[in-house]
Amino acid sequence: MIDLRSDTVTKPDDAMREAASNADVGDDVYGEDPTVNELEAKAADLVGMEDALFVPTGTMGNQVAVRTHTDRGQEVLIEHESHVYKWELGGLAQLSSLQVRTIDGGKRGIPTPEQIRDGYVEEDAHRPGTGLVTLENTHNSKGGVAIAPEKIDAAADAAHELGLPVHLDGARVFNAAVAHDVPASRMTERVDSVMFCLSKGLGAPVGSVLAGDEAFISRARRNRKLFGGGMRQVGMIAGPGMLALDNVERLADDHENARVLAEQLSDVDGLTIQEPETNIVLVDTEATGMEADEFLGVCEDAGVRGTQFDTYVARFCTHWDVDKSDVESAAEQVRSALEE
Amino acid sequence: MIDLRSDTVTKPDDAMREAASNADVGDDVYGEDPTVNELEAKAADLVGMEDALFVPTGTMGNQVAVRTHTDRGQEVLIEHESHVYKWELGGLAQLSSLQVRTIDGGKRGIPTPEQIRDGYVEEDAHRPGTGLVTLENTHNSKGGVAIAPEKIDAAADAAHELGLPVHLDGARVFNAAVAHDVPASRMTERVDSVMFCLSKGLGAPVGSVLAGDEAFISRARRNRKLFGGGMRQVGMIAGPGMLALDNVERLADDHENARVLAEQLSDVDGLTIQEPETNIVLVDTEATGMEADEFLGVCEDAGVRGTQFDTYVARFCTHWDVDKSDVESAAEQVRSALEE
Amino acid sequence: MIDLRSDTVTKPDDAMREAASNADVGDDVYGEDPTVNELEAKAADLVGMEDALFVPTGTMGNQVAVRTHTDRGQEVLIEHESHVYKWELGGLAQLSSLQVRTIDGGKRGIPTPEQIRDGYVEEDAHRPGTGLVTLENTHNSKGGVAIAPEKIDAAADAAHELGLPVHLDGARVFNAAVAHDVPASRMTERVDSVMFCLSKGLGAPVGSVLAGDEAFISRARRNRKLFGGGMRQVGMIAGPGMLALDNVERLADDHENARVLAEQLSDVDGLTIQEPETNIVLVDTEATGMEADEFLGVCEDAGVRGTQFDTYVARFCTHWDVDKSDVESAAEQVRSALEE
Amino acid sequence: MIDLRSDTVTKPDDAMREAASNADVGDDVYGEDPTVNELEAKAADLVGMEDALFVPTGTMGNQVAVRTHTDRGQEVLIEHESHVYKWELGGLAQLSSLQVRTIDGGKRGIPTPEQIRDGYVEEDAHRPGTGLVTLENTHNSKGGVAIAPEKIDAAADAAHELGLPVHLDGARVFNAAVAHDVPASRMTERVDSVMFCLSKGLGAPVGSVLAGDEAFISRARRNRKLFGGGMRQVGMIAGPGMLALDNVERLADDHENARVLAEQLSDVDGLTIQEPETNIVLVDTEATGMEADEFLGVCEDAGVRGTQFDTYVARFCTHWDVDKSDVESAAEQVRSALEE
Repeated sequence: MIDLRSDTVTKPDDAMREAASNADVGDDVYGEDPTVNELEAKAADLVGMEDALFVPTGTMGNQVAVRTHTDRGQEVLIEHESHVYKWELGGLAQLSSLQVRTIDGGKRGIPTPEQIRDGYVEEDAHRPGTGLVTLENTHNSKGGVAIAPEKIDAAADAAHELGLPVHLDGARVFNAAVAHDVPASRMTERVDSVMFCLSKGLGAPVGSVLAGDEAFISRARRNRKLFGGGMRQVGMIAGPGMLALDNVERLADDHENARVLAEQLSDVDGLTIQEPETNIVLVDTEATGMEADEFLGVCEDAGVRGTQFDTYVARFCTHWDVDKSDVESAAEQVRSALEE
Repeated sequence: MIDLRSDTVTKPDDAMREAASNADVGDDVYGEDPTVNELEAKAADLVGMEDALFVPTGTMGNQVAVRTHTDRGQEVLIEHESHVYKWELGGLAQLSSLQVRTIDGGKRGIPTPEQIRDGYVEEDAHRPGTGLVTLENTHNSKGGVAIAPEKIDAAADAAHELGLPVHLDGARVFNAAVAHDVPASRMTERVDSVMFCLSKGLGAPVGSVLAGDEAFISRARRNRKLFGGGMRQVGMIAGPGMLALDNVERLADDHENARVLAEQLSDVDGLTIQEPETNIVLVDTEATGMEADEFLGVCEDAGVRGTQFDTYVARFCTHWDVDKSDVESAAEQVRSALEE
Repeated sequence: MIDLRSDTVTKPDDAMREAASNADVGDDVYGEDPTVNELEAKAADLVGMEDALFVPTGTMGNQVAVRTHTDRGQEVLIEHESHVYKWELGGLAQLSSLQVRTIDGGKRGIPTPEQIRDGYVEEDAHRPGTGLVTLENTHNSKGGVAIAPEKIDAAADAAHELGLPVHLDGARVFNAAVAHDVPASRMTERVDSVMFCLSKGLGAPVGSVLAGDEAFISRARRNRKLFGGGMRQVGMIAGPGMLALDNVERLADDHENARVLAEQLSDVDGLTIQEPETNIVLVDTEATGMEADEFLGVCEDAGVRGTQFDTYVARFCTHWDVDKSDVESAAEQVRSALEE
Repeated sequence: MIDLRSDTVTKPDDAMREAASNADVGDDVYGEDPTVNELEAKAADLVGMEDALFVPTGTMGNQVAVRTHTDRGQEVLIEHESHVYKWELGGLAQLSSLQVRTIDGGKRGIPTPEQIRDGYVEEDAHRPGTGLVTLENTHNSKGGVAIAPEKIDAAADAAHELGLPVHLDGARVFNAAVAHDVPASRMTERVDSVMFCLSKGLGAPVGSVLAGDEAFISRARRNRKLFGGGMRQVGMIAGPGMLALDNVERLADDHENARVLAEQLSDVDGLTIQEPETNIVLVDTEATGMEADEFLGVCEDAGVRGTQFDTYVARFCTHWDVDKSDVESAAEQVRSALEE
């Protein structure tokens, strides 16, 4: 079975397992785990921030960030397909009582400065004021598109001119950086906080990082405790996480494999492929007459797994447990299965 | 330095490190991590429940449990010194908009059936109805007292007669079981859910378990995701957690060491010691004229660490990184330091 | 000064003042105010519902409805310019922790059945499920457009097929009914609850009504208390409210006056007028080079008051304190002022 | 039927009805209702505050005050039988996500300075900080006891020393002032905000007032809108409310009538009467063998109505619709009924 459901399925390699085994640990609630402290320092540095915080999941990193940036009763201005809003069980409203105002960021999921200015609400007698803008890069629901740093800058600048902080959901921000051939810190230059995942393309078994300035991370640390993310001997997972930070350049392979997969699937009758920019391949199945879930059933019978994204859209995701020959086989197996 | 601040400071041993290193893993959000699945099954069995859920922290386990048991707008009936209410940043109100009604559970922190009946509120036009009773065993803020199973049964029965589910914060329920020389499942016989920590006296680096019936755990799994607790290759920490489950009987050593520590500290002028029932030793410093934080400063200078519990109360906690000779040394060092 | 800011500024006439003075009253928290009971029965009947509840404001009526229809953790599917979402201080999130999913209802602010089906979210591991659809008629932010009953029916049917209840924000539902020459009950035939205001075009000094089936209203009564809407000798305001219910047909005059105002303002250089369907006239000022607030300042100096709706959009609202000669004067005064 | 259930059942007299009828009104959402403006100024003055806000109910006044004084995530320190906590449907948690910490204020329901210092929580990594102290005078659940101004001062001073603002639930603060023969402003001298009801002993049909400093009231006005309390031609109820403010001295009659009632009921076999300090008479029925609801059924059959307060406690409340002969009749009727 070739598993292309998500880059979250990657399994730690021997080096990571050894790093877990050998990690120097302490109680992180007391701030005494040297490995997580080292990871947080290195992670902050990678994205050009003052400080960072290890969190068990990207969802927690995002929800902690949003709560930390806002006051009671504000609105969050957010792209309407973004993960923070769409796939996190309504946490903005449920955990922090925040209302959203959504922006349609188009095919690339990136609000323009004008959209941000239009969406901004000044607090008045009838309306909650906007308290935060969130962005996402790469944008998962748009097919892993890699937003250019200038677009992020422009959106962030527009927000700042309105006095609004900006959080970047950078679950796959290193994929975006690699796609644009810039360091990740270039992607986060003008945002106030960024969350990125160690557990996706970078290959760590568990964990994400939230980075920002010192005062922000200090408040975020308390909100992490509120949400139940204050763990103990975190070094056991931060150790593998440290190695994951060395895997950034390797993401180029995932992108290349995604391009190969997309190209080969393009030749299959009835499939329309969105040209991948990173490691996500969206497949439109409408011309086959099959809905995505039926298509995925056929694929699975043929030894290839993906996930449903919309009624007629399936997603395949490359990652470090699949190589070029795997994706070539996958394409071939899907083709054969559909031709039967 | 002899570190008696908490049993959360324990570091994983070689076997646990090896278990992390060798763990068979998968993506737990898809339910495919064999190690965490095995751990959840074994953990459920140990506390006599149908199913269980691995969570990154005890706080998350408690807060998920409380949210899962209740409907919007209810009250939780809870002991006024209990961890869920006092030390979890107000999560009941902040994360689930639940009001508390508190019971003074006395020196042992266990509400009587009569107190539960008195505290129960029937929903009416002016009052939110009670939706849940939570208990705690051992009771941390009362000095690790081990509530007898019959007391837990009685409180749970009283709650059930009122139609209320019961959650047990059993962060240290194995300590309670060992103290009463019963299996943990005896302690949880009549409650509807229990959270216990792998990361305290059992020695795992990270993680806790929430157990209950299948329907409850299924809903809890979704609330865990909401709170940001849906991790990926969880086996890396569940592996050590599996071994932690074998450490239950070893807790008797911690209890014995606590008794030794308490006995020897009792001889120190000015210290009043609450006789320990498990692994927590509360030290009243009032007769020394020192507040607890000053006392702890003296201890730390002498090579012994504890935590402040109240203005005049310090806490020492035994655990698997300290043995009998350690606690004897600790007592001696504290005595010498105070006598100077 | 001709005050066209809102139909909320209307002052009660002598009959209403007398009705207040003579109202038979009792304590409505005990359900013993005969006047409010009579009003609730009559109001329910007018909109074809089983039962009704007097509330101090339309905002409370809407927020109580939304909370009563939903469970903790759901989403509300709602038009993106609707009052419940845009002008009620984020109450959905702040008071009931509900996330919104917004629909762009176009120029008339009415979601199509397809939009409702598209916006519907089935509860799953990552997403809150949709719990409610809300509609608005007449749609205030769209310029008081009167949605046809068939459009409301179609949206409601689409919601019901998905198992979703439908709340209608009918603050001005009688304006909509008069515009379509149908009884109000035709407008609410397929929705599950409706809120309408006694205090706008109907002329009552204070109060709105929430109507629905008996079980719904019974639960809504409790939520009204939670929000602080459980008043005492309500008859004093329900008395005038009873008379307001007799003012439905009179709304035709407001509509006629709005048409006259719109027609005459259309002749003013630089103003673009949206053809009014009810009692709201939207004036686009962009071609004058003035933003709406500057335009309104000129109007006010000339003796006419309106409100700003958008950067270049001003709103005038006709009501029972202005007659045809008033709106003719108003148009003339605005024209003269602009020509200077 | 002599109705002693509550002072909320009072019906407006002819002067109040006339005041409603003749009130000069405007749209209070625009701040243009002269009657409510006058009432707010007069009310603020009576309690010695800078500014005031008319609210439809005491519950809304309290809940708005609590939300306005606090930040997200704090605790409220509150007497455990107080109305804000016990009888307002859990609004603190449900509307503002605030956790409570309760104080047992003893027979008089007034926390001592020491209790406030003990209950205070300094914000730290595990605990929400205290954000507000609320007090209640007269204390309803304690039987309308009139707390002395010095006790209120002492509690408020203790709170202020901790940096905490103080809200007084003064639903019946004028009863307290009359009982202590001081102006109401003496009762509120050291608190930061006070809510009092126009609709209880003062006899207005609808409404309460929240008073505080200007900045506080400005923010409270916005929270009132959020909760759905922003009404329109409020003068119609503020007019009677103005007259209610002249009824303060008349409360002495209610107190005298309560004393008469208590004295006469004391002679009835099996009834134990708590000596009333204001207009509330608590009757313990335990010695009769009847629970309070059964006792009240007997009373009602005999033509006297009261309310149940606890299993064996009934409450009678005097007010301006009953005079001395009424309470004498009531006592006589209860006595006869019980003797049968």
